[in-house]
Amino acid sequence: MPTRFHRPFEVDIARYKVILAYHGAAFSGMQRQARRRSVQAVLEESLRALGWAGRSILIAGRTDAGVHASGQVAAFDLEWKHSSESLQKALNAQLPPDVAVQAVSVAAGDFHPRYDARKRTYRYRIYCQPQRDPIREGLAWRVWPAPQLRRLQQAAKQLRGEHDFIAFGTAPQAGGHTRRRVHAAGWRADGDEFVFEVTANAFLYHMVRRMVGLQVKVGQGLAEPDAVKTALSSTQRVRELAPAHGLALISVEY
Amino acid sequence: MPTRFHRPFEVDIARYKVILAYHGAAFSGMQRQARRRSVQAVLEESLRALGWAGRSILIAGRTDAGVHASGQVAAFDLEWKHSSESLQKALNAQLPPDVAVQAVSVAAGDFHPRYDARKRTYRYRIYCQPQRDPIREGLAWRVWPAPQLRRLQQAAKQLRGEHDFIAFGTAPQAGGHTRRRVHAAGWRADGDEFVFEVTANAFLYHMVRRMVGLQVKVGQGLAEPDAVKTALSSTQRVRELAPAHGLALISVEY
Repeated sequence: MPTRFHRPFEVDIARYKVILAYHGAAFSGMQRQARRRSVQAVLEESLRALGWAGRSILIAGRTDAGVHASGQVAAFDLEWKHSSESLQKALNAQLPPDVAVQAVSVAAGDFHPRYDARKRTYRYRIYCQPQRDPIREGLAWRVWPAPQLRRLQQAAKQLRGEHDFIAFGTAPQAGGHTRRRVHAAGWRADGDEFVFEVTANAFLYHMVRRMVGLQVKVGQGLAEPDAVKTALSSTQRVRELAPAHGLALISVEY
Repeated sequence: MPTRFHRPFEVDIARYKVILAYHGAAFSGMQRQARRRSVQAVLEESLRALGWAGRSILIAGRTDAGVHASGQVAAFDLEWKHSSESLQKALNAQLPPDVAVQAVSVAAGDFHPRYDARKRTYRYRIYCQPQRDPIREGLAWRVWPAPQLRRLQQAAKQLRGEHDFIAFGTAPQAGGHTRRRVHAAGWRADGDEFVFEVTANAFLYHMVRRMVGLQVKVGQGLAEPDAVKTALSSTQRVRELAPAHGLALISVEY
């Protein structure tokens, strides 16, 4: 039986990029944390079952506990002799029901899902009814009374462009700068739901949840129509923080 | 302090009708079962906290383990001195996150949610993609390859009208008859999802799930276009049983 030392010089090692979807309810977040169930640890465990011996995979976004994803991105180096499709199938066979790999591709050897990302898109869902709806509760935030779409859209417009978002969150690294460029931000109605989508070059910690919290207050008439603009010219942290379970990371662009 | 014996003759006791919504994943079904978590037991426990001392509430439909509801109906007699709205609030404050009372009203003293029901409507959601979607997985059945809408609709048409549905399920009582009248049955597309809605005077055990299982096979071209019609003229049980988690009880009409 050949040992490691007899392996041919050219091995089928490559950097793989995977697109991940997960339901965030039972996770402490994307990033590995000691003694807690994270998406990263679950994916690494599945990779180990396929022979991966790395120390850590690379991830695009550190989503909070409870936040969902349909387009999270991770990368790792793996020796795999078969197709990307077969790697996707093998991973999905290992992963628990609340995580699934949506796509696998071979990336450049130095591809980094966080540093190479140009844009991220998040989606936040709210639903408007006087009582809890247990079917939607895990994926959307119940807001009552219902905000006005026109007021929500007015508030979203104020988010667009490059601003110092220090009032909306903290930088991932201590002392990191807090300027971000919001490429798109808007609300649409869908039955008794309102869906917020926002695309930026990058996001601060809790930034989307504070954006939603403040806009909903504006939409309900409990804050001035220009409250977002006011917050953007302030360094005082926005107090309104929408809950994690309405939020999902939709896509990361490179 | 007045005791039970000094209570005035006219007490504020009434039969209440409640509309219930629940996420079925963590329940063994609607009906109470020894040593298992049922919606009925959870609701009865909440009622006891409000002074209810009955033996059993009345329920409209015995949904299976894993089946959801947005319009289940239950009834009970309760002495309650306040409004129906305050009863709804008090119940929702007691109930766990996966059950909620959507509406409360006072019903006739002999109202029975099962025997008085004239029509029930169920909805079944499927989604079509090659890989699992953890966000939708709990509320919809993943079907791949995607069925054809035209074939699904053709199959649904064959379900309409009064038939002996013995091939689709068993009567709730041993020896009960298996004729049912289907008032409406149809599919609609919604993105990469297909949604089946069916209204009948009553349903047999597993009837909707067998309807969906067989229609999906027709839709995928794995069964003849008239397979539903053939099954309706047979006593042989349909083998295709769609999973519980795609199904929801939408409404009960009186």
